[in-house]
Amino acid sequence: MLSVEEARRRILAGLAPVSAEMVALSDAWNRVLAAPVIARLTQPPADVSAMDGYALRAADAAAGARLRVVGAAPAGRPFDGTLKWGEAVRLFTGSVIPAGADTVLLQEDAEPDAETVMVREQPAPGQHIRRQGQDFSVGDTLLAPGLRLGARDIGLAAAANHPWLTVHRRPVLAILATGDEISMPGEPIGNGGIVSSNSHALAALVRAHGGTPVLLPVAADRVDEIAAAAAGARADLLVTTGGASVGDHDLVQAGLTKAGFALDFWKIAMRPGKPMMHGYLGGTPVLGLPGNPVSAFVCATLFLLPAIARLAGLAVTGPATETAVLGVAVRANDHRADHLRATLARSDSGALVVTPFVRQDSALLRALAEADALVLRAPHAPALEAGSSVEIIRLHDLGV
Amino acid sequence: MLSVEEARRRILAGLAPVSAEMVALSDAWNRVLAAPVIARLTQPPADVSAMDGYALRAADAAAGARLRVVGAAPAGRPFDGTLKWGEAVRLFTGSVIPAGADTVLLQEDAEPDAETVMVREQPAPGQHIRRQGQDFSVGDTLLAPGLRLGARDIGLAAAANHPWLTVHRRPVLAILATGDEISMPGEPIGNGGIVSSNSHALAALVRAHGGTPVLLPVAADRVDEIAAAAAGARADLLVTTGGASVGDHDLVQAGLTKAGFALDFWKIAMRPGKPMMHGYLGGTPVLGLPGNPVSAFVCATLFLLPAIARLAGLAVTGPATETAVLGVAVRANDHRADHLRATLARSDSGALVVTPFVRQDSALLRALAEADALVLRAPHAPALEAGSSVEIIRLHDLGV
Repeated sequence: MLSVEEARRRILAGLAPVSAEMVALSDAWNRVLAAPVIARLTQPPADVSAMDGYALRAADAAAGARLRVVGAAPAGRPFDGTLKWGEAVRLFTGSVIPAGADTVLLQEDAEPDAETVMVREQPAPGQHIRRQGQDFSVGDTLLAPGLRLGARDIGLAAAANHPWLTVHRRPVLAILATGDEISMPGEPIGNGGIVSSNSHALAALVRAHGGTPVLLPVAADRVDEIAAAAAGARADLLVTTGGASVGDHDLVQAGLTKAGFALDFWKIAMRPGKPMMHGYLGGTPVLGLPGNPVSAFVCATLFLLPAIARLAGLAVTGPATETAVLGVAVRANDHRADHLRATLARSDSGALVVTPFVRQDSALLRALAEADALVLRAPHAPALEAGSSVEIIRLHDLGV
Repeated sequence: MLSVEEARRRILAGLAPVSAEMVALSDAWNRVLAAPVIARLTQPPADVSAMDGYALRAADAAAGARLRVVGAAPAGRPFDGTLKWGEAVRLFTGSVIPAGADTVLLQEDAEPDAETVMVREQPAPGQHIRRQGQDFSVGDTLLAPGLRLGARDIGLAAAANHPWLTVHRRPVLAILATGDEISMPGEPIGNGGIVSSNSHALAALVRAHGGTPVLLPVAADRVDEIAAAAAGARADLLVTTGGASVGDHDLVQAGLTKAGFALDFWKIAMRPGKPMMHGYLGGTPVLGLPGNPVSAFVCATLFLLPAIARLAGLAVTGPATETAVLGVAVRANDHRADHLRATLARSDSGALVVTPFVRQDSALLRALAEADALVLRAPHAPALEAGSSVEIIRLHDLGV
């Protein structure tokens, strides 16, 4: 059986970022840049005032001097003359400093009348001036490919005059649920049947991580039906789930094989997570998740989310982990990496405390929904006392 | 001047969650529940097998006993007879336990031939059976109003047979940028003009927090134009930005007043953040953000994001903070709450270290985009050495 790390390495090795598309700036939030954003203008475009006040020559402006106000230059309407000896121009935040001026007298330090202004305190040369290009200049690379665009990045791209951005298109993930017992929510449920939950949860995860989910019609437990459904998928990654009714993945694997599937591996030394399958159907990578909802989720967290990130153009090698302190003792682990569902809390001293649920039954969807984190237990990890440090994966941060 | 906390309290006090709508389960990820999700079925729907194996009576199944296999019950196709003495039924994970059976013999502990199965190890009564309703039962409240739906919640709602969910509609936020010098990206830029960045960054923030942004046409620096633009907005919250060309908010405030604006307050003891305005235009709450991009962002983080959360139906009183360790010394603070832009890193010992930028110039969009966090400095906070603990707000977590 493969280790979790080796399995993830092999899955990621078979994936490349999807191609690019152009989107309007207003649609680009949370997308991943595929081309650099290079400044198309200089910011500030000229030397501008950082405050409301008066542009003048510092040498003219001893305390008590009275200068002639020869104009005003609101932001966007620069004064087009040149300031001469003994003159001042009214300015506002963002106003271009007129030619000939070399400093800004603060409004608070000025005493204006109808046509002149009296200097209360002599300004230093260059004071309250934001220099041309202080933020960025034409040709500067402002944002690099591989960045997931946050709101501030959108603001920066706007300021650099980009109405369109080149981003990776959203990876398309086809989701194939199988099983005679599966109904969709709101549809008739057979005797002994259950309502599909995995495919909906997985579709939401795909959305949360910037992909486009395609829910393939549920395939009955027949090899030819599974083969046809898989062969018809047009996706950057095909995700299967279930097939439990005749013993885990046997039927899904048989169906995929009929469609031309090349298996890479199907066993990982982990818990929960019965056999998880990986391989290729033609050029399409395939992840075969367990049918058990909790197992499917843990496998999705460990393998599917990094896969989506890689497809989306992000430099990701695995889920982000952090350290927390155990709220209770845990037993020694066996040979399989374990992933305990747990709650998080802050202790009085501010420490992050993680407490695994007493019941780790992998059929309990409701307990899964209430978990804040997974506690990572390596193969053969020793028993730990309460208060020991452990690595965790936070679930809420993943949109999970 | 108001404190940050008092200002936020007053802003939030004027906001109520927006009304509800029904959305398809597949559109419900990240929406906020407005009605509880109550289980419409019981999960598991009957006692089911947790493993592949054989249903039988524990009393019949001493080690070495040979039982007659009278049928098979794949998941979704229950065995409809009643198990009699000496009989077994082939089962798979999720199969309904047939009437008369009281335990499951693991496949690994069974030795089958054409018509019978030999017991290798006697199973305990009730073993490997998941009881009816072990996860949830009809009528259980599974998800409560006010929850932002994660992927696991979507899975749980699906399993509970909900094809539709009742969620708060997305709050509509109208964004009004003003200023003669403002162009939209890609449009002609006047002499001394700049490209709007605030409104695009704010629109992205609104999206990131689950709202729908409406970008009103940029209003020129004229009272009547601002009044007309504001009066025409149909929104749950009107956000203005800019108006810097004639001295901060004076013109925006004058324009709004002409449209019937009732001012609540317009000064907060904070930095960055020149006057930030709050009030009501008819029944519409209004937030007037500074025109300076960094000031606008800090104000949005402190006031706008909690406002969107309140409108969206979440129980939020302010941005989430956490504790970090200063990487450098900071000076004593004056009477205004300060919000230092800073980077985050992990020390060798795993501590979260926050290092404010040397230049805190509020005109630097590029430095803002590179910040990981804001360091919160209360009014009159004393000077601190490197290594001291401070409260921070993480920016990436906010979609910022």
